[in-house]
Formats: sequence, C-alpha cells, structure tokens
Amino acid sequence: MRAMIIESFGGPESFSEVVLPKPEPGEGQVLVKVHATSINPLDYQVRRGDYKEYVPLPAITGHDVSGVIEAIGPGVTAFKPGDEVWYTPEIFAGQGSYAEYHVAHESIVGLKPDALSHLEAAALSLVGGTVWEALITRVNLQVGETILVHGGAGGVGHIAIQIAKAAGARVLTTVSSHNAEFVKSLGADVTIDYKQTDYVEAVLEATDGKGVNVVLDTVGGDTLERSPLVLEQLGRVVSIVDIATPQNLVEAWGRNASYHFVFTRQNRGKLDDLSRLVERGLLKPVVGATYPLSEIGLAHARLEQKSNGLRGKIAIDVTA
Amino acid sequence: MRAMIIESFGGPESFSEVVLPKPEPGEGQVLVKVHATSINPLDYQVRRGDYKEYVPLPAITGHDVSGVIEAIGPGVTAFKPGDEVWYTPEIFAGQGSYAEYHVAHESIVGLKPDALSHLEAAALSLVGGTVWEALITRVNLQVGETILVHGGAGGVGHIAIQIAKAAGARVLTTVSSHNAEFVKSLGADVTIDYKQTDYVEAVLEATDGKGVNVVLDTVGGDTLERSPLVLEQLGRVVSIVDIATPQNLVEAWGRNASYHFVFTRQNRGKLDDLSRLVERGLLKPVVGATYPLSEIGLAHARLEQKSNGLRGKIAIDVTA
Repeated sequence: MRAMIIESFGGPESFSEVVLPKPEPGEGQVLVKVHATSINPLDYQVRRGDYKEYVPLPAITGHDVSGVIEAIGPGVTAFKPGDEVWYTPEIFAGQGSYAEYHVAHESIVGLKPDALSHLEAAALSLVGGTVWEALITRVNLQVGETILVHGGAGGVGHIAIQIAKAAGARVLTTVSSHNAEFVKSLGADVTIDYKQTDYVEAVLEATDGKGVNVVLDTVGGDTLERSPLVLEQLGRVVSIVDIATPQNLVEAWGRNASYHFVFTRQNRGKLDDLSRLVERGLLKPVVGATYPLSEIGLAHARLEQKSNGLRGKIAIDVTA
Repeated sequence: MRAMIIESFGGPESFSEVVLPKPEPGEGQVLVKVHATSINPLDYQVRRGDYKEYVPLPAITGHDVSGVIEAIGPGVTAFKPGDEVWYTPEIFAGQGSYAEYHVAHESIVGLKPDALSHLEAAALSLVGGTVWEALITRVNLQVGETILVHGGAGGVGHIAIQIAKAAGARVLTTVSSHNAEFVKSLGADVTIDYKQTDYVEAVLEATDGKGVNVVLDTVGGDTLERSPLVLEQLGRVVSIVDIATPQNLVEAWGRNASYHFVFTRQNRGKLDDLSRLVERGLLKPVVGATYPLSEIGLAHARLEQKSNGLRGKIAIDVTA
C-alpha cells in the first residue's frame, strides 16, 4: 500500500511516500481501505515533534479515517466487509491514517453516516469527537445557556457552533469579518470581529453585561486568563489547546468558574452520537480544501499558515 | 451592643471595640444574639485589605454566626424567637459577625444542630459550607474515589477529611508529622509529611502509580501547577485559595483534568446538609483554640502565623 511517512520530526517537507505491505487485522480488529483522511493542528504538532516521546520513528501519522471494511479479524462482531466506516485511530498507538489501508480495533470504529461523503466523514471524526467530549461530556452544555466559541470558522469551531445550536444554546463566536456570514449560516447568533474589537467588551455588550455560561477555547494565547472576564457565576471554560504559557487565574475564584482541559479520547459511542445529529440535518462538516495523499505536506503547510483563508477543514483524498 | 470594628485596613491591631445600637430586623430578616463566631483566612484577608473594593469602612467583619434568634422581621416564616441558629453572613454585604447582634435574611440561616455547641457551630459554618460546595456540589466526589486533601489539620482540611470519608472516598492528606495521629483520628487513610517528602512521589506510591481522582487545594503556592502529576485521567482539582501567581497548566490536557475554583456561596440548604452529617455522628468540627471577642486581634495574629500549632479552628466566644 502507499503511505506517507516521516523519518524525522520537522517541517511539512518531512513526509515521503513509501510502499509498505498491507497490514492484517488481528483479534478484534478490522482492516479498512482508507478513502479519505483529514488534517488537524494535532497532526502538524505531531509532525514537528511536540509529542516526540510518544511517537516512535519512522511513523505513519494521521488521526481521521473514512473508508470501507475490507476484512475482519477473529472475534469481530460489529462489522462485516463492505461496511462504510469512520473513526479516529488511537492517538499515540499504532499506525495513523495517512495510508491506503489501516487496521483498528472494532471498539473505536463507527458506521459512517450515509449523509456524509468519505471526505466529509474524515473531516468530522476527530474534531467532532473533540467537540462532543468538550461541550457535552465535560461541560454539559444546557439548553438555554450561552456559549462563546473562539475561532468559529475553524476546524473545531465550525463544528462547535453547530453542536451548541443543536443543544439549544445561544452562540457567540469570534471570527475575521470575512467569515461572519459563513458562521452565521452555521447558526452563530452573534459574530465578534476579534481583529477590530476587544472580545471581552463585545461579549459583555451582547449579553447585557452578564457574560456567558461556557467558553470554548480553540485558540490558546491568553484565553484561559481572560475567560473569567466574560463568564457568569459558575461559568465553565473548556480548552482543547494545550499551552505552556503560565496563566494568571486569579479572577476565576470570584466567578466560581470551572476549567476543563480536553485531550480527545475515542470511542464508538461518540461517533454514533455525532451520526445522529448528521442524519437529522443538524450537523455537517465543511470541507474548505481537498488535497491528494501525495500532497499531504502541502496541506500541512496550508493549515499551519495563520491566514490561510480556510473555512472548516482540509480533507485528504486517499483514492486520488 | 459591643462590636469589633476596623476603621482602616491593616494588621491584627486594626480592631477596636465600640458600642453601637442594636440592629433591627427588616422584611424577611432575623435578629440574632451572637453567642459565637470564628475566624478564617478570609477574615484576615478582608482585614488587611485584599478585598477593599468590596468592603466600605468602617466595617464590622466576620463570617460565622452561631446564636439565638431574639426577634424576627415582617414576613419571616422559618424561625421564631428562641431558635438556636447558625450561618455565614452574606460575604461583602452588610454587617459581619464580630458583634453581639447580627441581622440576616432568613434564607441563609439554618437551625443549629443540637449536637454542636455554639462555639463548634460557629467553627463549622463557613468552612463546612465551603467544603460542601467544593467536594459535593462542584466536583461531585463519588463513593470509591480517592482524594488528596492538602493541609488536612487545618480549618478547611479537617472538615474535608470527614466529609470525604462520609462520602465513601479514600483520603490521603498532607500534614506536619506531629498532626498525623490527629488527622487519622478524623478518618484520613494515608498521611503525607510534606516537610519530609515530596507529596507527588508519596501520592503515586500510595496509589500504585495511578494517582487520585480529586485534589482539594487549601494551600495555594504551586498546587494548581503540580496537581496533574498526581491525577488519574479525568481527575478534578478544586481550589478554595485564590492566588495571583501565574500557573503553568500544560500537564492538565493530557490528564483530561478539570479545575474548579470556589468562592463560597451561602444558603440554608447547605447548612441543613451539614447538619445531617453532624447529627449522624459523621462530622464534628475541632476547636483548637478559643478567644473572647475583645481579643479578636490576637486570634487573627495567631491564625496568620505559619506554624501556629493549631488543629482545626479558632472559635470566638462572644458572650465572654
């Protein structure tokens, strides 16, 4: 099978195409012909070596799969050859998704929703699972609450807007002005141009000075430190961006705030939860650009650019 | 009535004794003859000016009341004169408890448990409410979980040990070695002498390398930053000590940790919850020292000393 590997950590040029034997499914595993994968900030962080103690080299990385089951190992009961499936490969364990074939334990695999193409499903698995974990499992977003989604036009943000709306929340989101209409079409109630205005002031203005119940941090920087300034009493911050910059949280006590730090965990249940929203028309990932597997380095380079003009996600067509 | 007031923020010598008119209960309020009050780190923080924007001077401070209802205002339905009651006066609103009389809205007042003296009840109201808020309301400590209580011999710590045990948790706690037997008598399973050993190593050793589910921070310093090192996956940190020192939380994401910041809120329900544990013999505050109201400054000075030899709380006898 064709695969893109890295032999050393570094820039987007670190990938090289190789031909490797097709893997075989073991006990409880399925062999999937990968039709599409996707890229995430996690992918370039892994590539450049942020997690090098967890990633033995050479490595096939990549954290999204949409494809078709080609074979099943002993003991597999949930799937059969020909099933269309999607999932996030186990992070820091085994082969990633930048390859024509992938094996995974059946417990982390879901049946792909029919309403999504392989490119769309691959664009949703990791970010959808992350948003579900953050907003539903961890902060338990409630109907009628108000949420601030940082970076609403991005890979995580554009999914968070849709899931928060589906949960019955009012959604405020920060975007560049040229993306305001885009995020409104996804359901955002209030857009804040973070380049033109201080978002703290804008949030307080949009909430009659009360602030929001939940902040989703997809951007890092000083978001943890400033979040109490936009939180109601007992508000919650949930962050998916690990940063090493010390944060002064002294304002958090007076708000009785909670902070939830999320590093995605995978399971089939979450994929099925996402599928229900997709099938009901409440959730659809936006694929802003598509690259062939052989150009994965170019795709990485684009995602890493600060002003990349992207809306939603970059998908990778593995059949191209 | 006699009262201890501060006319300017400063050291323990800032208190002076004055005689003021007895307050009168308004709509929904009760007038309480104060038998006992207590002191907490919050009290010396208020006295020295940490919250000066919320405390107009001159001020009667103090955050614990145990006493007897002398009169009730219009509309009061839950209490009658002669009822023994306990509560935490509303923080940053109205008069505090360092006085012979106090008025409060009935909604924050509870019937004092018979099993406690006024000195004991006054020693429990604020710290008990804080621990209940932290461990039960906010982190939802579960039967079978393991908790690390920092500062187990202190005012908050010695109550936290008892409530955590009553909730069915295994309790590890940091203490000076001379307090090890004391906290064991309250129910602590494992004591860690933080002066002799690194508590992170000690916690991992006592939990077969797995860590704890919950950390209660009553000490500040770098506890927020180091807590992920002793946490299991999805562990929770709850802190009642607001600190302005920036904290590097980069280890929190990998543990999927949550942090809860608590600044006590008062209500009758929490007092009644505490009373049930007291009446069942599961919770009893320890009064390590008692001072008369006129010596409140000496009591403050003692609590502020790092090595004050105290176990549990300082109570103030307002009838002396």
